[in-house]
Amino acid sequence: MTGAAQAAPPPPGIAEIEAAAGRLAGVAQRTPLLNSPFLDALAGREVWLKAECLQRTGSFKFRGAWSAISALPADTPGVIAYSSGNHAQGIALAAQLRGLPAVIVMPEDAPRLKRDNTAALGAEVVLYHREREDRDEIGRRLAAERGLTLIRPFDEPMVIAGQGTCGLEIAEEAAARGIDARTVLVCCGGGGLTSGIALALEAKAPGMTVQTVEPDTSDDVARSLAAGHILRNQAPISSICDAIVTPEPGRITFPVMQRLCGPGLTVSDEEARRAMALAFLRLKVVLEPGGAVALAAALFHGDRLADGPVICTASGGNVDAEVFIAALQNYAVG
Amino acid sequence: MTGAAQAAPPPPGIAEIEAAAGRLAGVAQRTPLLNSPFLDALAGREVWLKAECLQRTGSFKFRGAWSAISALPADTPGVIAYSSGNHAQGIALAAQLRGLPAVIVMPEDAPRLKRDNTAALGAEVVLYHREREDRDEIGRRLAAERGLTLIRPFDEPMVIAGQGTCGLEIAEEAAARGIDARTVLVCCGGGGLTSGIALALEAKAPGMTVQTVEPDTSDDVARSLAAGHILRNQAPISSICDAIVTPEPGRITFPVMQRLCGPGLTVSDEEARRAMALAFLRLKVVLEPGGAVALAAALFHGDRLADGPVICTASGGNVDAEVFIAALQNYAVG
Repeated sequence: MTGAAQAAPPPPGIAEIEAAAGRLAGVAQRTPLLNSPFLDALAGREVWLKAECLQRTGSFKFRGAWSAISALPADTPGVIAYSSGNHAQGIALAAQLRGLPAVIVMPEDAPRLKRDNTAALGAEVVLYHREREDRDEIGRRLAAERGLTLIRPFDEPMVIAGQGTCGLEIAEEAAARGIDARTVLVCCGGGGLTSGIALALEAKAPGMTVQTVEPDTSDDVARSLAAGHILRNQAPISSICDAIVTPEPGRITFPVMQRLCGPGLTVSDEEARRAMALAFLRLKVVLEPGGAVALAAALFHGDRLADGPVICTASGGNVDAEVFIAALQNYAVG
Repeated sequence: MTGAAQAAPPPPGIAEIEAAAGRLAGVAQRTPLLNSPFLDALAGREVWLKAECLQRTGSFKFRGAWSAISALPADTPGVIAYSSGNHAQGIALAAQLRGLPAVIVMPEDAPRLKRDNTAALGAEVVLYHREREDRDEIGRRLAAERGLTLIRPFDEPMVIAGQGTCGLEIAEEAAARGIDARTVLVCCGGGGLTSGIALALEAKAPGMTVQTVEPDTSDDVARSLAAGHILRNQAPISSICDAIVTPEPGRITFPVMQRLCGPGLTVSDEEARRAMALAFLRLKVVLEPGGAVALAAALFHGDRLADGPVICTASGGNVDAEVFIAALQNYAVG
């Protein structure tokens, strides 16, 4: 059996997602669903933003992190994660709240803000080179050496269950406010948030279809969905959307996306910047480039969407001030 | 009786505030209470931000506007308001949602974004000169000529009742999350939000005391509270906190504040800018300068506050990009 791929574990069911929601209650932020008549007019339809940038640590990743860490046995020696930054901060805070040591393996070129925040939340940061080293291998080695529990950023059922709680909130809020959306756009990296939301909506709002949105230079999920099997990106990838640039969709997440999601969408870096500026002007939230791609697709590629209201998931807001200022100077000043 | 001051109407009671909450349900945004471990560390205490910048039209003013306009008879010919901008946008959207014409009397020097937004929401904008003309007189004249209902920005019981719904949410959310705050800081102009929140908390969370926060160049409320009677600001006032620069506290709002609030606080324009940058970095929300003064007081003047967690009300986020960029360049880059 040497060399044979280990079978991927099954994704969480709705019971696991609802159990995660129970653990997250009172710990995670219930994020608002925001709307602006100006964005509606621009898009020619109602546009609703699920503002996960307002989640603790500035991205949805805290949901999955707390879902996984809150379910660990009390005598766990600690946790380890590899991340470009948002999963890192989520894990660091969740471990700190649980009183567990956390080691974070992070690329050398991750935004300074994300590195600094991770360290300030009490985690030990170990840097690696994105092209010369394999973060999975580093994570496995450190986990073995120190007895740490590895918490993968997306291909991990308890993490997907946590991200799925965002989908539960979307379904509840849309029902409460009478938002008859057929499309839910999700900023997509490895597919943890996408598959979690898709699984939650399958059970709670089956009339809504999830579609992934990626930078056009990192469209592995869109191509994989079109091909019917996992395809990798060509490395190295140049995009300002660092938070959602991943080599390929996950082995757990991809089959979920293949079963439940519509065609994948892509936007340009400039469209992401313009969406950041519009979210500043009209919704008063801070989006990072990768967190703005779903809104960008709703605003600038409506021709690719089913008619009617659209819900966009803004995945995060951890952006360096320089990058944010440049987006405003190009698209909000004048 | 010629020349005698007309008696001010009484402020709303908790029943009127709760009735307003009923009318606002499903129309106004229930705004989140946000927190960051980084801001907690900076302040040396828990700091919670009630993010009214995420309210519809980018400020709390939509609450009072919808409270007043939703209670008007169906045959009302239209409404008129005078405002530096945030009340204007709130009234414009509320009138549009109700299908009523709206006229807004606005100072010539109001931020461009606020003027443009008000007009884009379907209101007729009438400009006046802040120093040479009296906005109250202009409002009264136009109201009489066209049969419009004047909706004052703060000295109006139905408006105060609407702003009070923000206080109901603060009390509910603090209880649900176990936030044992003794102090609620409110960005204060004429006192509509402050008195509304104070009345709601008097009934629902009597352990919390409201304190006003103003720019140190426009400290009419702090001085009036200290003196025990209404004092005016010296005009003209120079502050970047345009949204909360008012000549004096209201005749309805001041007695409420005098009865229920602690001493008034002030912050500098630079402290407001620094709080804007920290809200960008740590909470991922956009604050206008006047909307940042309560957070600034919590972060930089904790020595003037009772111990324990503090809740800050961020009143709005309608800031021109140039002003926001300048705040980030000074305090978030580097």
